[in-house]
Amino acid sequence: MWYQKEIRLNPKARGFHLVTDELVCQLPELKALSLGLMQVFIKHTSASLTINENADPTVRGDFERFFNHAVPENEPCYQHLDEGSDDMPAHLKSSILGSSVTIPITNGRLNMGIWQGIYLCEHRNHGGARTVVVTIQGETKSSN
Amino acid sequence: MWYQKEIRLNPKARGFHLVTDELVCQLPELKALSLGLMQVFIKHTSASLTINENADPTVRGDFERFFNHAVPENEPCYQHLDEGSDDMPAHLKSSILGSSVTIPITNGRLNMGIWQGIYLCEHRNHGGARTVVVTIQGETKSSN
Amino acid sequence: MWYQKEIRLNPKARGFHLVTDELVCQLPELKALSLGLMQVFIKHTSASLTINENADPTVRGDFERFFNHAVPENEPCYQHLDEGSDDMPAHLKSSILGSSVTIPITNGRLNMGIWQGIYLCEHRNHGGARTVVVTIQGETKSSN
Repeated sequence: MWYQKEIRLNPKARGFHLVTDELVCQLPELKALSLGLMQVFIKHTSASLTINENADPTVRGDFERFFNHAVPENEPCYQHLDEGSDDMPAHLKSSILGSSVTIPITNGRLNMGIWQGIYLCEHRNHGGARTVVVTIQGETKSSN
Repeated sequence: MWYQKEIRLNPKARGFHLVTDELVCQLPELKALSLGLMQVFIKHTSASLTINENADPTVRGDFERFFNHAVPENEPCYQHLDEGSDDMPAHLKSSILGSSVTIPITNGRLNMGIWQGIYLCEHRNHGGARTVVVTIQGETKSSN
Repeated sequence: MWYQKEIRLNPKARGFHLVTDELVCQLPELKALSLGLMQVFIKHTSASLTINENADPTVRGDFERFFNHAVPENEPCYQHLDEGSDDMPAHLKSSILGSSVTIPITNGRLNMGIWQGIYLCEHRNHGGARTVVVTIQGETKSSN
C-alpha cells in the first residue's frame, strides 16, 4: 500500500516545535498498516525536521540556543546576505539537521521510543506556514 | 517483501561503535532480496546512528573527541540539566547525526562502499542496551 | 515497482555542488511513477549528500566556508592523520551532513520545493569520481 499527502503545518515562531500530533491526526491511514515506513519531507531550505525528546520543553529551548551559537548570524565569511541575517544560518541548520525523517510503522502506529517526537525546526524569524510531503508505505493488516 | 524486527544492541561505552556485523548476523532475511532498502531506526534520543569509516579505530576515537568539543557539557545556556551533564549534549548529538540510516540492498547484501560501516553513536556515559527497529523491503530473488 | 542503478558522478572540486540535473537526466524511470520515493546513497565516507538552496551559488560557497571553520583541519585532538589533513574533517562532515537523501516522487517528478536541489558535498581536495546507488520505488501510473 502507498499513500501520499501534502500537509501544511501552521506557522511557528523561530525555534524547535513538537509536531507529532499535528501530523498524526491528519494521517488516519496509518492505522491500516501492520508494518511499514512513514517519510516526512519538508519542501523548504530554511526549516528542517528531526526526532528528539518529546517531554521537557527546555530541551527544545536548549536546541534553539545551541544552534544559534553553533551557526551564528552575521559571520564575516557569509556572502549570501540578501535575505536577512537569519537566512544563511537557516540554510546551514537545515542541512545539519536534515530535510526528512523516516519512521517505522508497526501495528498501525509510529514505532518510536516513548520519549521520541517529531520536531519541526523553524530557522527563520518569520518562516510562515511550512509544507511537508508525507509518504506512507507498507503492508495492510488485511493483506497479512 | 516486507520484514521488520526489533533488535537489542548490547550495552556500549560512550563513544562510536561499529555495529554492522552485530546487526547483519541477526538479519538472514537480507539474503532473500535481489534489491531493496534496509532502514535501521534507533528508539532513543541520546544515541544515534551514522555511516562512516569501518577500518581504522582512530576514526571512531576522533569522532568522540570532535563531538565532545563541538557539543560541550555544562554550557551555561543549557536549561535541561536534571538528567546529568551528558544528557543535553547527547540529545543535540543525536539530532546532528540522526536517528536512522537507510542502506540499499543489492543481490542479498548491503550495498555500501567497502570502507563503510554502521556506527552506533552512544552519547551517554551509561546508556545501557539500545533498541533499534530494522525494516527491510524489496524484491525477492524468486520474484524477479 | 523497484528500480536500482549505480551512477558515477563526475569528479568535482572540494566544495558543495548541485547535482540534481546530473542525476535526474540518468533516471528516465522516474517518469513512470505516480507516487513513490527515490533514495540516493553515496558509497564513500569522505563525501556526503544533502538538500539545500538551488539558486544562488554563494549559498554553496558559504557552506564550504562554514564547514571548514566548524570542522577544522589539523586539530591537535585528531589521531587519524595518515591520509592527509583533509581526511578526518571529511569523515566528520560526511556524518554531520549524511550519506543519503530520500525524496518523494509525485506524478513522475521529484516532489521537492522549487528552491531545493540535491548537493554532492565533496570534502576531499582530490576526491575523484563518486559513486551513488539510486533506489526508486513506488506505484506506476498504469497500476493506479
